[in-house]
Order: sequence, then structure tokens, then C-alpha cells
Amino acid sequence: MNKPVNVTVWNEFRHEKKNAAVKKIYPDGMHAVIAQSLSAHANLRVRTATLEEPEHGLTEQVLAATDVLTWWGHVAHGEVSDTVVARVQKRVLEGMGLIVLHSGHFSKIFRRLMGTNCSLRWREAAEKERLWNIEPGHPITEGIGEYIELPNTEMYGERFDIPTPDKLIFISWFEGGEVFRSGCCWERGHGRVFYFRPGHETYPIFYNPQVQKVLANAVRWAAPRVNIKDNCSNVKPIEKLAPKTEDFGKAGVIQSK
Amino acid sequence: MNKPVNVTVWNEFRHEKKNAAVKKIYPDGMHAVIAQSLSAHANLRVRTATLEEPEHGLTEQVLAATDVLTWWGHVAHGEVSDTVVARVQKRVLEGMGLIVLHSGHFSKIFRRLMGTNCSLRWREAAEKERLWNIEPGHPITEGIGEYIELPNTEMYGERFDIPTPDKLIFISWFEGGEVFRSGCCWERGHGRVFYFRPGHETYPIFYNPQVQKVLANAVRWAAPRVNIKDNCSNVKPIEKLAPKTEDFGKAGVIQSK
Amino acid sequence: MNKPVNVTVWNEFRHEKKNAAVKKIYPDGMHAVIAQSLSAHANLRVRTATLEEPEHGLTEQVLAATDVLTWWGHVAHGEVSDTVVARVQKRVLEGMGLIVLHSGHFSKIFRRLMGTNCSLRWREAAEKERLWNIEPGHPITEGIGEYIELPNTEMYGERFDIPTPDKLIFISWFEGGEVFRSGCCWERGHGRVFYFRPGHETYPIFYNPQVQKVLANAVRWAAPRVNIKDNCSNVKPIEKLAPKTEDFGKAGVIQSK
Amino acid sequence: MNKPVNVTVWNEFRHEKKNAAVKKIYPDGMHAVIAQSLSAHANLRVRTATLEEPEHGLTEQVLAATDVLTWWGHVAHGEVSDTVVARVQKRVLEGMGLIVLHSGHFSKIFRRLMGTNCSLRWREAAEKERLWNIEPGHPITEGIGEYIELPNTEMYGERFDIPTPDKLIFISWFEGGEVFRSGCCWERGHGRVFYFRPGHETYPIFYNPQVQKVLANAVRWAAPRVNIKDNCSNVKPIEKLAPKTEDFGKAGVIQSK
Repeated sequence: MNKPVNVTVWNEFRHEKKNAAVKKIYPDGMHAVIAQSLSAHANLRVRTATLEEPEHGLTEQVLAATDVLTWWGHVAHGEVSDTVVARVQKRVLEGMGLIVLHSGHFSKIFRRLMGTNCSLRWREAAEKERLWNIEPGHPITEGIGEYIELPNTEMYGERFDIPTPDKLIFISWFEGGEVFRSGCCWERGHGRVFYFRPGHETYPIFYNPQVQKVLANAVRWAAPRVNIKDNCSNVKPIEKLAPKTEDFGKAGVIQSK
Repeated sequence: MNKPVNVTVWNEFRHEKKNAAVKKIYPDGMHAVIAQSLSAHANLRVRTATLEEPEHGLTEQVLAATDVLTWWGHVAHGEVSDTVVARVQKRVLEGMGLIVLHSGHFSKIFRRLMGTNCSLRWREAAEKERLWNIEPGHPITEGIGEYIELPNTEMYGERFDIPTPDKLIFISWFEGGEVFRSGCCWERGHGRVFYFRPGHETYPIFYNPQVQKVLANAVRWAAPRVNIKDNCSNVKPIEKLAPKTEDFGKAGVIQSK
Repeated sequence: MNKPVNVTVWNEFRHEKKNAAVKKIYPDGMHAVIAQSLSAHANLRVRTATLEEPEHGLTEQVLAATDVLTWWGHVAHGEVSDTVVARVQKRVLEGMGLIVLHSGHFSKIFRRLMGTNCSLRWREAAEKERLWNIEPGHPITEGIGEYIELPNTEMYGERFDIPTPDKLIFISWFEGGEVFRSGCCWERGHGRVFYFRPGHETYPIFYNPQVQKVLANAVRWAAPRVNIKDNCSNVKPIEKLAPKTEDFGKAGVIQSK
Repeated sequence: MNKPVNVTVWNEFRHEKKNAAVKKIYPDGMHAVIAQSLSAHANLRVRTATLEEPEHGLTEQVLAATDVLTWWGHVAHGEVSDTVVARVQKRVLEGMGLIVLHSGHFSKIFRRLMGTNCSLRWREAAEKERLWNIEPGHPITEGIGEYIELPNTEMYGERFDIPTPDKLIFISWFEGGEVFRSGCCWERGHGRVFYFRPGHETYPIFYNPQVQKVLANAVRWAAPRVNIKDNCSNVKPIEKLAPKTEDFGKAGVIQSK
């Protein structure tokens, strides 16, 4: 477990270039802040990748060298190439971990892995959020107390259109009256997927120490235990089969006699 | 619950045209046999649709009038149009039921709803299969005893690359030494999905009364309870929000003062 | 599905006798109000039972004739006889439905079926609660809109010490800042169990039409599909076993030769 | 993760004393063989405890110093004191891991944590078993290949009366025609529970290297992440409550004015 985990922090990196207010909070992009916070952990080896890079920075080589990928996107989900999405999905199913952040709920990769719309209600009103830790024994909540309180957030409310999580670990309370399943774990293929709600571009949420703690915990939790290529193999019987009492022909069908 | 259920039985209908042995078993196609067996139930209204029809017989109108869709495909998964797959997925997420049969495990629609490869091991050796009913209280196993025994089947073995089912109801034993999760339930969006393993084209499995019983039960279980269109709505607060202690600017970001 | 469902509404019936304020709300006991609301449904046949009756009103005969049992208790959990608890558990495992209400979270029967402490946080401050319906397609939420709002309730907050529900259908928001998994479904043996949070003795919650709607829906959902007695049977092989290559003795152990 | 894990291997230790054939296989008891195999792992610190010891060897002190408890029992489940069972359950809910072996499916502690009968079918015919590894990425199957094959075992068949496992990792195939969920994971309270089927007293199964590997993996998987005492606390509101529009009296009930 102490072997190094190779993390790739992916960011759409669009708001930070176009919006002065966002740029003030994240001058080098959200990915830079997330990557820096993860890099503080000795066994996490962190790189970043963004939408504008060739192949969005997610080449076969990069993904092959990635244990856990974190994903933030919002306004440009549609610009992510289907080829890259298929490549990421393939790696998750082989064992790579995936951490989907905030508005990444609508990313192609998350919707593809979930099979659902991943819709929700939302509101931008800088309101208070309290994420209740309902699984204090889960590796992702290690060191987090009873809850995380964020003074100003975008609201996400239920119904969140996701498959029932394998494990639900955070439920949010919002000042305006809604609730949300804010920390959800699934397994898909041999990979682990974690959705974590906080992280809007216009609030400095990725600087929050508890949020940073959750991200580091989640990366370690999602680190692959295997790397297994997909196959659908034609296999021989292990046990001896009884002689067939009927005569099956070439197509496996009973021959008229 | 006694209101009629509109079922559309979909079949690729390719083997039955090209392979004499299959044609002998299913002269009018597997869909005809499945549809006939379902039609024996008073409150099931059954139609069929096949690959070669325009839009594969699954127009907006047909799907809008379908409560539960059953799906059999094998050699022509790739010929199913992505547009129709997206349309079926949309309807499942709105509430339509979907029953995926046998080699349908590799259909586009099943893989899209699962988010995984849906691979498995397989062997064609006309071997014995015994499907153990592990949930005798489930609506889908009503009237099925301890197990279903099929004398000659294609083998499907684990690992079956699917998300953990919400409910596992059949586990198969195979003569050649393998096991398989043969009856699996999931919910996706507002719809119910059931995968049922039996049904190879070269064995007369869809004539088996227990298999027919499971299909009728599954159709009733998967009948929609709602029809809810996807939306991701911007909502007003229900509770009054506290005045913000900081001044958030246009993009929601704290203004320097 | 339209066959009658025999419901037994069980109540500790202690507060209503000792506390004038509670008596004013529920002069004949909470069970009377619950039973009356269920009786409005044509196919529900309702009886009641209370702690002070012989065998708490839950004799073998009564339970044998009960399809679904609802349970409200609070101050006298310890006075419920272990014999009766074991009897109820046995019937749930055979197929009987069980609906556990509010402070019933600490009842012997609920803790026994869950295997956990079923603890939570709580506060009596007559605060507002909003139960978000996160599964609008579930039979229990039929006819319930986006949420149920209750103006004055006792607060229950997370962490609720329960096994992960098979299906989580309501999440509560509380005015004081907490959240709670307020509607939870499980299967135990052949029976279905539903925990529903609302229902404190000092607020007239069981008169609320939406709460009454949930109770009626839950009773129908939990109605048994089977009645299967427990057994652990010694069975003969179905398949012929290979001759053993080693000689096993009386205790099944390899004999030295 | 590399910190030492304190394991207590519990055994009924009855067959090994009374039955010569069993004694030949396990002269010092099954616990001795299990303990020895676990002790080969550097960070596992292993002790044993048996039924005949005072308090069955499971005093408050021993349990307080135990991270993971393994449990084998068969003929003397009824002799295990309820006090000790309650003590073990309390520790599991606080975070201690529990590994239940083979006929331990009928132990008081397992049934109490599951809430079900835990019944199954069975047969003693020294038949072949093949445990299929359906979750090759799970920590418990690390280093186990596609399956474990055991030449001579007691058969356990479905239906196994357990709550749906959080994760099913082994499914057994039996020569005589049955299947079984042989490796099942649950969480209860803050503790992890693993049921593992192999291990009959009359076959030398605990000497099998793959079985030993699973046990060591399971112990590490079940090692506690927290130690949290049960409480059900009365808490103050975090958010300011609105003034109540109605006057609630001492018992929380609306006062007539």
C-alpha cells in the first residue's frame, strides 16, 4: 500500500482563462491547486493534463502510467473527444481509479460509467453546505470529523440520477433546504470510481484543508489493485462432459435422424 | 398492477434466416416464440420488432408505447444504430423496463446501461445447466421451484464483467465446471433492467416452460411505475438564505473591496 | 397484487396513557390513527395490538394471520419479551413484511434484524423537516411529490448506525442543520423491512396525508410474496459423484491404509 | 497499513479432542494450523482462544486487544455464552474485523450480525469444490487465480439465508450439482465481516495454501480503520432555529391557548 500512486489531475481549464474572477482564485487553474495539495503526500506522484493539450493530455502512454485520474469539467464536456473517453473508460475497467469532481457529474466519462443521465437540481447562491460524514470508518473519510462545512457553495440537490452507490459516504445539507449524496463510491470493472460534490470554480473550495484531505484519501482508496485486460474467452471444459444423448450438428442444433 | 403491460420483443433475427438448423427450431424467429409465450398472459400486450425494420422497429412512437422491451442479439450488435440505442437508453431512464437475454450481454444498450464490458467466458458444448433460484421470494422467481434445469446449453462462466447487481436471483451451475450469475436485477434512472442468461439460438430454450415463466414474471416486474423526463433544473431556495457576509460578484466570486 | 393484505398495527401505547399532551393528539393511541388511515384502503385488513395485551397481542395465531406488521415503540423497548421478538423475527424471515416507525429504530426487533446498534443523534425542538424523495419510481413513493415537509418534528441526525440499505428512498433535511436517511428498505430472509423516520408522539404526524400515503404504500410493498419455513436440509447429490480416489472413513476422514 | 494487526483465532476445539480421525488431521486443533499460517506474515500478531477457556478466551481485555477475530464452530454453538456473543458484536460494531469460517455460518455471532437464519443445504460426500474468484481486483483475492479447487469437501448449497452481501467475491461449484456464495463481505457498524465457506473438520482444508492466502488477505482487509464507541446523543442545533409559530408545551405538544 505504500508503493507510489501515479495521479493525473485533469482539468477542463476554461473558466480560469476566460473569467477574471475565477482567475483570481485559481490563477494557474484548479488542477494546479489540486495537484499541489496531492503532491504534499510523499507517495503520490502527480501530473496534470488539460483539455487543450493534444489528446487532452490523456494519451495511451499517460493513461498507462496513471493509477488514479481526477476529473474536473463544466462548460466543455462536449469538446472532450469520444476516443479519449473510450480510452479512459477502458483503463478504469482494467483497474485505474477515477475521482469525479463537482460539475464533472455531467462529463461524458462519468455518464458512460454510470449509464444514467447524472442530472440533479442546482442553484448558484453562495450558500452554506455541510457534508455529513456517514461512514467514519471508510478510508476516504479518515481524519475528517463529523462533517465538512463550506460557507459558500453552489447548491446541488436531489434527485441525483445515479445508480445506487456501492457505498454512500457523504450527504450534504444546504442552507436553502436541499440535500445531496455528495460522496459516492462505485466499482466498475476492476476500477474504483468516487464522485465528490464540492468544487465550484467561483469559490476557493479546493484550498479547503478538509476537501484536500478527502481528495488525498480518495486517491489512495482508488489506487488500482490489479491491471486486467478485457477478454471474452472461449474456454475448454474443466470437468469431463457426459456424452450427449442427442446428436448436435455443426451449428449446435439437434440433427433429425 | 393489473393494468395492461405493453411489451415489445426485439430480436436481431439473423441466425434464423441464415442457418437452417436454427430455422428449424425457430422458423419465425425467436421473437415469435417469446411473443407467443408472453401473449398467453391476459394483461400483456405484445408486439415484436427486428433489426431489419426501419429504425430497427424501435421508432419514437413504438418506444413511447412500450412499457417493457426484451432484447436478443448476437452477431449484429454493431449494426444497431447508435441513435436507436440512445433512444432506448433514454426510455429506460424515464421508466421503461428492459429484459436482456443471453448473448444480449454484449449488446450496445446493455453495455451502455452497465458502463462495463459485460465480458464473460463461454463454450458451445451442449452441456447441462442448472439455474439455482437464490431468491424464492422475488417476483421474478414466482412459481419457479428450487432450480431450472436445461439439458443442453451454451456455457457462460464467470467473471461476468458487470456492476454488482442490486439483486442477484439466479446462479448457474454448468456440467463443465463453471458458475455464472444468470439472473441479475438493476435499476437505472427510473427503469428496471433484468439480465437473464438462457437462450442460445441453437437450443430450443425459449420453448422451456420455466424459462417462459421467468420471462413473463420479469416483464411484470419491470413494468414502469413512472414516466419521468430527464431534467437538470435551476431551482430557487426553499428556505430563506442568510445575507452573505462577503460580497460575491457576477461570477459568484468574492469581490475585492 | 389485489388480494387483501392483513396488517397488524403494533403500538407500545404508553405515552398516550401517561402524558396528557400526547393523549390530546392521540386519544385512542397512535395505533388507532394509523389503523384508521390504512383501513381507508379497500384491500387492507387492519387490526391492532399493543404492549399490555397478553403476549403483546402478537400470539402465534395473530402473527400467522399477519402479512405486514407495523411497529411503534419508544420508552418500553425493554419490556417487549424476547420470546415475542424471536417470533416476529421468525415470521419476517418467512416472508412477513415489517414497517418500523420513528423511535422503533431502537426496538429489539429492528436491532435484531439489522445486527447493529441503530443509534443516531436526536433533538426535540419542534423543528422543520423536509423528506426528499430520491426514488420517485419506487412503489413506496407513489403519489408523493418531490418532498414531504413537516413543520414540527423531533430531529434525527446521521450517523444512523444501520447496514447499508438495499434501497434508500428518503433523505431528510432538518432546520437545525442535520440530514438523515429517513426511508430505508432491506430484505431479511424472505421478508421486506422498511424503516420510516417520521412519527414522534408529541406532534400530530400520523395525521399527515403524505405520511399516511407512505404508510399505505409501504404496507403494499412489504406484503409477502412467499411463506417459507426455515430449514437447513441434508440433501442428496443431483449429479453422480466420481468414485473417491481416497478412502474416507466414518467421520469423512482419509483412512490410513 | 503496515502497522501490526492483532488477530485472535477462535475455535470451538471439540471435534479435534473427541474424534480420532479429526485429531489425526488437526492434532493441536484447527486454530493451531490457522494461527501458524497467519503467523508467517510479518505484520500479523496472532493468538488463539477456545470454547473451554474461561469466558471462551474472549475476555474484555482480549477483545480490546484484538483487531480481527476469526471464528470456527460447529457442534457447540449453543454453548457459547450470550454475554460473550454480545461482547464480540459490540466490538465488531466499534470496528473490529470478523472472519467467519465454514460451519460458523450457524454461530450465534454470525446470525446476530446478519439478522437471518443463515441456513443452507449440505451434504458430506467428500466431493470436489471449485471456488470461482469473481472479484479478482478485491484485496481478499489478491494472489488467488481464477479459482480455488478443493478435491474433497462437505457441500454447502443455495439458498444461503443471508442478507445480500455488500460484495460477493467467491461462488462455489460442486461436483454434486449445487452452487454457493462462498465468499461474502459485509459491513456492520464500523466493522467488516467476511464469511468464507471452506474448512470442514474432516478434510485438511486449512493446510491448503490458497485457503491460507485468502485468510491472510481477509485478516488484512478486515483490520479496523477506527474504534468508535456506540452513542445516541442528544445534540444542540447547528443552525439557528426559526421562532416556532405555535406554542409547544413541556412534552413538545401544542398548548391550547
